Amino acid sequence: MKEPELRKDPVTDRWVIISSVRAGRPYGYSHGEMKNEENIAVKCPFCEGNEKMTPPEISAIRKNSDPDQPGWDIRIVPNKYPALVESKQTEESDNGLYRSIKGAGLHEVLIETTEHNRPMSQMSKEKIIAIFSMVRERFLVHSANDRIVYSQFFRNSGQVAGASLPHPHSQIIGLPVVSKHVAEELDGSSNWYKKNRTCLFCHMIKKEIDDGRRVIADNKNYLVFAPYAPRFSYECWIVPKKHNARFENIDMQEIENMASALLDILGRLDKTLKFPAFNILLHTAPFTDIHNKNYHWHIEITPILSRVAGFEWSSGFNINPLSPEESAKQLRNF
Amino acid sequence: MKEPELRKDPVTDRWVIISSVRAGRPYGYSHGEMKNEENIAVKCPFCEGNEKMTPPEISAIRKNSDPDQPGWDIRIVPNKYPALVESKQTEESDNGLYRSIKGAGLHEVLIETTEHNRPMSQMSKEKIIAIFSMVRERFLVHSANDRIVYSQFFRNSGQVAGASLPHPHSQIIGLPVVSKHVAEELDGSSNWYKKNRTCLFCHMIKKEIDDGRRVIADNKNYLVFAPYAPRFSYECWIVPKKHNARFENIDMQEIENMASALLDILGRLDKTLKFPAFNILLHTAPFTDIHNKNYHWHIEITPILSRVAGFEWSSGFNINPLSPEESAKQLRNF
Repeated sequence: MKEPELRKDPVTDRWVIISSVRAGRPYGYSHGEMKNEENIAVKCPFCEGNEKMTPPEISAIRKNSDPDQPGWDIRIVPNKYPALVESKQTEESDNGLYRSIKGAGLHEVLIETTEHNRPMSQMSKEKIIAIFSMVRERFLVHSANDRIVYSQFFRNSGQVAGASLPHPHSQIIGLPVVSKHVAEELDGSSNWYKKNRTCLFCHMIKKEIDDGRRVIADNKNYLVFAPYAPRFSYECWIVPKKHNARFENIDMQEIENMASALLDILGRLDKTLKFPAFNILLHTAPFTDIHNKNYHWHIEITPILSRVAGFEWSSGFNINPLSPEESAKQLRNF
Repeated sequence: MKEPELRKDPVTDRWVIISSVRAGRPYGYSHGEMKNEENIAVKCPFCEGNEKMTPPEISAIRKNSDPDQPGWDIRIVPNKYPALVESKQTEESDNGLYRSIKGAGLHEVLIETTEHNRPMSQMSKEKIIAIFSMVRERFLVHSANDRIVYSQFFRNSGQVAGASLPHPHSQIIGLPVVSKHVAEELDGSSNWYKKNRTCLFCHMIKKEIDDGRRVIADNKNYLVFAPYAPRFSYECWIVPKKHNARFENIDMQEIENMASALLDILGRLDKTLKFPAFNILLHTAPFTDIHNKNYHWHIEITPILSRVAGFEWSSGFNINPLSPEESAKQLRNF
């Protein structure tokens, strides 16, 4: 099995991860083998009692003090089928045309609960607070690793959203390069800052509140709205009202209100779309970044309702059959 | 039904198409309703005899001279469920934060054959030549439309690759803006040209032939290889050896050799992967573009073997479990 490798396409500057380890990962949805409760207890590597099926835990919230034993609420473990791994030495290669990086990167799994079938929308507020407190903790650890430039938190919920195991979990990948999407966001927000001397996201929040048509929910610390140019139907963004480039800088009260906003919007999506598959994505400034004035962390939730067609892949355009004004109206009034 | 609209995300500069018309399109794969030959003849809008089920044809190769009647080999019709449409007047709006364009764009369907079940890999060379001659003709027509900046040719083959009807067809979308992926390729190749005074693709062809590990096939006019940083397993590029920014400039001999290269690689993919779903994407310079020296048209073929997961969507990274050296080896020696 070859070591995972990051490679950069010289035409588009897009990084790709080549990881043969990933091909071996188990798939808990196929052939119904996980449907039977008994089978779940035997086979699900994230269920209580099966702690030895994962690599040794990195961090946990648990009632007893023995790692890798039952009696936990949340566990963080290295991904057994990692997209990237850390070696003693990072190897970089660049022959003038092609670039690659090996041996830098982390891939962690956050097992959110012992309850195999609990949808995130039906978790307690305390649970969501605990999850995101753990995520913040991991971001602080990653930010101290000088080979990690950017950490990506994401949650695939449901099979068509890319989950390979149904047991509630999310993932964090620490990367030695900034992802293309976030690099694009940094470019866009930095260009805006140069022209306007304001944060693009702060400006957007004001404009969205004034306009109102795309607003879904609003609490003390967060605005939840359908973005003006959504790639997916019912796409929602949770944007903190206070300017802050970095997720890991938020305080306990902001985590609490984030948990409220997240549970609220997940409930609206479940009621409107009958438990859709979705992805939750955290966008935050790179650890090495000095764009504190122009970037603004936020969460993007993208329900996955239809197959992504060739046009999307080839052109970089998404075709979305539903306007954000219409989806916001439905989600506001569910 | 609202008119389709292009909207630009202010953070990433990514254009999105909002088109409620698209939601209504028929889906020929579900519930087996197309499996029965009788049903196909009644229901498939692309089968011979059902010409009235499509909008009136724009162009065709046919034995008799009556449009929208049986007796054709290839038909080009407007997409009944268009991503974009042309109006008398293009409406552009820009409030400083949000931009949109309405009323410019074309969406055409090229019905490749009367044979409902013919895979592209089993079409004759003459058929492939005829298809791409028609595509070139449409590109020349689009390039004369001063509201069309870029035309995207694509073919979704198979359900998981985004096809909604199984009858062999491909599509061309004419756009009033340059797609993000091609804009990125123009940036990359233009940066390379400024530094090296050579075309990036011409340089890459030489290097790939010298290296050999990623080369799959090679004919007089085209090199077929697995790109260094492929987003998808078994991704293949067909790149013309002669420098040329624009597909629509190729001559008849180049179309002939392209047809040979395409049939060869589709055959290798079918034999290696047992008739996979795939997308064919044509990348060419925008009509308004003056990057003739640095850009280089080419075809990208992306087999679709696995679900695209949240990590890909959120981060802009693709995770590919198979190296291009390995996939090229398999496809070379099938």
